[in-house]
Amino acid sequence: MAASRRHPDGVRHGIKKQGELMLDEFARIRLWTGERQRPALLREQGVVLGIGDDAAVVETPPDAEGGATQWLLAVDTMVETVHFNDATMGDADVGWKALAANVSDIAAMGGVPRHALVSVSVPKTWEPARVGRLYDGLYACADYYGVAIVGGDTTSSPAQLVVAVTVTGTVEAGAAISRAGASPGDAVFVTGPVGMSGAGLHWLLAAAEPGAGQPVPLAAAEADGTAALVAAHRRPLPSVRAARLLAARGTVTSLNDVSDGLASEAWEIAMASGVTLALRESQLPYSGSMTAYAHRRGVDPLEWMLYGGEDYVLLGTIRREDAEAARAALAAEGLPMYIVGEAEEGEIGVSLIRDRGAARQAGRREAIAKRGYNHFNG
Amino acid sequence: MAASRRHPDGVRHGIKKQGELMLDEFARIRLWTGERQRPALLREQGVVLGIGDDAAVVETPPDAEGGATQWLLAVDTMVETVHFNDATMGDADVGWKALAANVSDIAAMGGVPRHALVSVSVPKTWEPARVGRLYDGLYACADYYGVAIVGGDTTSSPAQLVVAVTVTGTVEAGAAISRAGASPGDAVFVTGPVGMSGAGLHWLLAAAEPGAGQPVPLAAAEADGTAALVAAHRRPLPSVRAARLLAARGTVTSLNDVSDGLASEAWEIAMASGVTLALRESQLPYSGSMTAYAHRRGVDPLEWMLYGGEDYVLLGTIRREDAEAARAALAAEGLPMYIVGEAEEGEIGVSLIRDRGAARQAGRREAIAKRGYNHFNG
Repeated sequence: MAASRRHPDGVRHGIKKQGELMLDEFARIRLWTGERQRPALLREQGVVLGIGDDAAVVETPPDAEGGATQWLLAVDTMVETVHFNDATMGDADVGWKALAANVSDIAAMGGVPRHALVSVSVPKTWEPARVGRLYDGLYACADYYGVAIVGGDTTSSPAQLVVAVTVTGTVEAGAAISRAGASPGDAVFVTGPVGMSGAGLHWLLAAAEPGAGQPVPLAAAEADGTAALVAAHRRPLPSVRAARLLAARGTVTSLNDVSDGLASEAWEIAMASGVTLALRESQLPYSGSMTAYAHRRGVDPLEWMLYGGEDYVLLGTIRREDAEAARAALAAEGLPMYIVGEAEEGEIGVSLIRDRGAARQAGRREAIAKRGYNHFNG
Repeated sequence: MAASRRHPDGVRHGIKKQGELMLDEFARIRLWTGERQRPALLREQGVVLGIGDDAAVVETPPDAEGGATQWLLAVDTMVETVHFNDATMGDADVGWKALAANVSDIAAMGGVPRHALVSVSVPKTWEPARVGRLYDGLYACADYYGVAIVGGDTTSSPAQLVVAVTVTGTVEAGAAISRAGASPGDAVFVTGPVGMSGAGLHWLLAAAEPGAGQPVPLAAAEADGTAALVAAHRRPLPSVRAARLLAARGTVTSLNDVSDGLASEAWEIAMASGVTLALRESQLPYSGSMTAYAHRRGVDPLEWMLYGGEDYVLLGTIRREDAEAARAALAAEGLPMYIVGEAEEGEIGVSLIRDRGAARQAGRREAIAKRGYNHFNG
């Protein structure tokens, strides 16, 4: 499959036999990855030479305005047993999510995702059909977002599946939105509900039968009213369109995608921008199915909303005077946007204003900890 | 470290405790990867925003002539126990080689390597110092070739080390050299000796003490006269300068890097171009140390030269009328170039003309098999 190489290094020297893929599998790799995408998509993304040589050749796709663009580059890795297991995720889900996580990083800079390069290390115990499904999910996500897969490397792995995806994107020159631009007075927004993926994972781990070796079927979630949560966990839908509409307004001052939980991402913006982000509990986007499931399990939904992660919606700040107009503009396109708080002067950090439901105590403020394992300034 | 994310996914949900890195290690990641490169290098490579946000932002570096450029993209993966083990490679060697293999892919298109994104999945059993050494090797290679490391993802791995590196490069628009342009009459060349890496690996596997858990020391190779072979295996030096000088001539008709052995790479050019590549045994670049070691071990040096791989020199074809001038031009820069055969009309394939030493039989031709595991048209 490789742009960089047509077959795994793993079979070159045979240091360890366990590293070798069977002959058949090389033909299969070509089946999985050869000519899977429409020529029109590849052309649109500026692909001059795709998979099959030492490297792909791409040119900057024509910009709508004919203006100069800059490139965005990001990489993300998913490791079996660390980020998922075979009960929580089907093989196609892993492929989808590995690419989606990267697409989300491009959205979080205000850009358009363009190309992907895929490194897959496949356990020797895997049936070929499983790899096929993984690629199916990957290409499904690529087609959904119009991303051209231009390179890859399929190797064998002695133990777990490892999928590392690199994406490129483009953004109008100078228009990339970092985490560092929030100012006191800016409104804080998110582009969708948070906590659903975390709740979905919670349900999946509880529903998994040890040693079943099969993903928990979606039908079981449907029967239990948690299908939306499971879908949010397995097939996240990054906010690319919202990102582009927001970036075009020129009033978004910082942007992050919610991969590691609202608290962690808010902290990153707060630290990079030197502000406090104050979130209002009453304005946070509670999903009905997530809240219902949380109540059934006796979990505080805030736990998943703040710390669950893998929501792949956007968290950002926008000039207060444009916040409502931006929300209306996104709504006109059928895209959600929730104003959830504001940036404030003061000590760097994240606060939650408890102004909702039973917990309402005349706007009591709580400091939201950046969970220890996210803490980088120690 | 990540451009895409500042900490491993692995600690987010804690599906498996084994996936978690210790708190200290996140601080270490920043030490390993933060501000490791000179600002001048980053500026030169068009880095607008480096490691630390959702994605890096880069712009097309200024071209010497001010002309349009295209981008090259490649990915390559190294998996412990598949591509190396802890006897054959030190940790820093793994870092160096993971990037070098990708730099070589850019050279093989005639381009200039620019940026790299690094995905490292670290076994939980590793001491932090080992990861530090891996990054040291990676950054040493990056500095050697002037590559800006703009993104990364450090996760934990339940078992083996997996390193996936993606590189970008640029090439003058329309000037990328694929494998498909060789014509009958073109001269075949390589930019350095082949087989040294394979011989080095042979020596390392023989010298390794089972279970030592330490790389075979270079001093042992020095004492045995095989240091050059071990260095070729552990610290390959891709032919970037040669590639750029050759590409500028406009007479190179196909180009490949020797990652999978001369036979395999020659086959790829032959298949992509629809020609026979005839190699002359007498003109192949036999390295003295490789030949001497082969004789000591009773191995036919051709075995390593044709099938060893990981030499990361370039194999290509060039218009016959420019071949000698090109060779002289590279020699003037201290760079080797060997004319080793020619492209011919006829059945697609690779031939070896036995015209050397004891085996000389008035130019007897042998068909060189594309080794089974490389065979993609089955």
